[in-house]
Amino acid sequence: MSLLIIGSDRLNDFFEGTKAAAPTRDVRAYPDVGNRDDIRYALAWKAPAGELANYKNLELIVSVGAGVDHLFNDPDLPNVPIVRYVDPDLTARMTQYVTLQTLYHVRRMTEHQQQQRDKVWAYLPEPMPAEVRVGIMGTGVLGQAAARALSALGYKLNGWSRSAKSINGMTCFAGDEGLPEFLAATDILVVLLPFTPATKGIVNRELLRQLSSDGNRHHRLPGPVLINAGRGGLQVEADILAALDAGGLYAASLDVFETEPLPASSAFWSHPRVVLTPHNAAESATESISRYFIRQIERLESGQPLENVVDPKVGY
Amino acid sequence: MSLLIIGSDRLNDFFEGTKAAAPTRDVRAYPDVGNRDDIRYALAWKAPAGELANYKNLELIVSVGAGVDHLFNDPDLPNVPIVRYVDPDLTARMTQYVTLQTLYHVRRMTEHQQQQRDKVWAYLPEPMPAEVRVGIMGTGVLGQAAARALSALGYKLNGWSRSAKSINGMTCFAGDEGLPEFLAATDILVVLLPFTPATKGIVNRELLRQLSSDGNRHHRLPGPVLINAGRGGLQVEADILAALDAGGLYAASLDVFETEPLPASSAFWSHPRVVLTPHNAAESATESISRYFIRQIERLESGQPLENVVDPKVGY
Repeated sequence: MSLLIIGSDRLNDFFEGTKAAAPTRDVRAYPDVGNRDDIRYALAWKAPAGELANYKNLELIVSVGAGVDHLFNDPDLPNVPIVRYVDPDLTARMTQYVTLQTLYHVRRMTEHQQQQRDKVWAYLPEPMPAEVRVGIMGTGVLGQAAARALSALGYKLNGWSRSAKSINGMTCFAGDEGLPEFLAATDILVVLLPFTPATKGIVNRELLRQLSSDGNRHHRLPGPVLINAGRGGLQVEADILAALDAGGLYAASLDVFETEPLPASSAFWSHPRVVLTPHNAAESATESISRYFIRQIERLESGQPLENVVDPKVGY
Repeated sequence: MSLLIIGSDRLNDFFEGTKAAAPTRDVRAYPDVGNRDDIRYALAWKAPAGELANYKNLELIVSVGAGVDHLFNDPDLPNVPIVRYVDPDLTARMTQYVTLQTLYHVRRMTEHQQQQRDKVWAYLPEPMPAEVRVGIMGTGVLGQAAARALSALGYKLNGWSRSAKSINGMTCFAGDEGLPEFLAATDILVVLLPFTPATKGIVNRELLRQLSSDGNRHHRLPGPVLINAGRGGLQVEADILAALDAGGLYAASLDVFETEPLPASSAFWSHPRVVLTPHNAAESATESISRYFIRQIERLESGQPLENVVDPKVGY
């Protein structure tokens, strides 16, 4: 009936956090596992491929983040329920990130900060939120929470998802057939999609070219904006750089990258219109994640349904 | 029955905006005034001292901004009603500014952007909004709107004003006697006070020293933060710089300065923990201000009460 912490760069924090959340349980941290047959429950991030298959009594895997692509990279992933970490702490952090980056670009802060470095005092015309259309790709818990916050600040909201949805306060588009219209009416694109074979590289040249293409973008927003807080694998970085440099994109806030940590050779580091953060948009407190892990175990043991269970067929 | 536009660096925009808002009225722009006796209504920003006293048929002055200290600097200001510009457009812009700058510092963006310049990929622990106490000095229309937006994002709100108020969703403090307790419980200080003899230089060493002094600041916020979008005359800039450099202040967002435009010699331009904007926090669209000017004229002419009339005794 032991618990395993595996594959995180904050392994020790989760180990201590989980012991604090459940002092009577036996918690172990990989690779210091002891008898693998003792392990029933795993809190996992990027576990070594094949390792999880060695735990024959494993009944539950909880992912440290909202995304689970790191688990599906393992061809020998055992066939047990997988739970994504989605809770108010992670959701609130993501909402803060999306709100901050949206406001930052609508208020033209990359330019204001350049003016500050140049000691230039100059007014820049800025649109009102009601004049700006934010399009959110991925309308799950995180997308809907971000939409509510932006809507309260006065933005117009569009949403796009794989299958059709109806969500209060936003115009919803769905599927391949809905994508062109969604993109054409989007000035600020917020990407919160899961990373799956169907979404790999979706933020590419062809997608970026269609942003704001209906001609209704407010003239005080110099161009469309990209905010990606989903996964780096969703984006084609060469295409983003080309769009920034050709003027097809005004600015970008990127929290995720094709390779992480972002290599020193990437042009994003020094790009004047890129705001780069180290995949921390929704970095949650280890205490919250540890408590969530224990809550799922307790639900399983008491016969209650698990929360945020992943459908292996769609990958989220 | 003519209208005068006077003393703005956007004189032409206001002239055109006012003509568009009231095509049948006679609008003149200083100094091209013609017969001064024709002028009944003035839309004014920094008018030359003594000039407004020359208009003997003047019945109304509308200030281009929410503050009117620029008018009271004139010892010969005529004794006619003065209306401040406060409308949903200005209020929404100020709310955006305060929300943006608060989120920016809670997410430790000055440090993240320095890391970006240094090509450093490193996680920084950040507090949740619910762990951060924002204190708003000045709880009028602008302060209350900013408080509502920050409260919706999860922050804890305190408010301070000259006289006691009761405002939903924030803990209110008042007067000299309430200031120490307010400051001690404030991690992020937002200054939206009017500039009057009583508030001149209020953001000084003594005030900054008291921020977060009750010891309840969350450890993930490195220090207190100052956001001033009121007036430059409220702040003692040497004291702010000293507090930033000594660690008493973690960071500052300043939209207003003792001297504007900010002189090139100011240390704020290149300070790594200062976000500086050119007094544009609530720069409103000239169309909105022109429409507001016409609305006040119409209210006066039809015997309705004016909006946002200034009390000359308190200066706001």
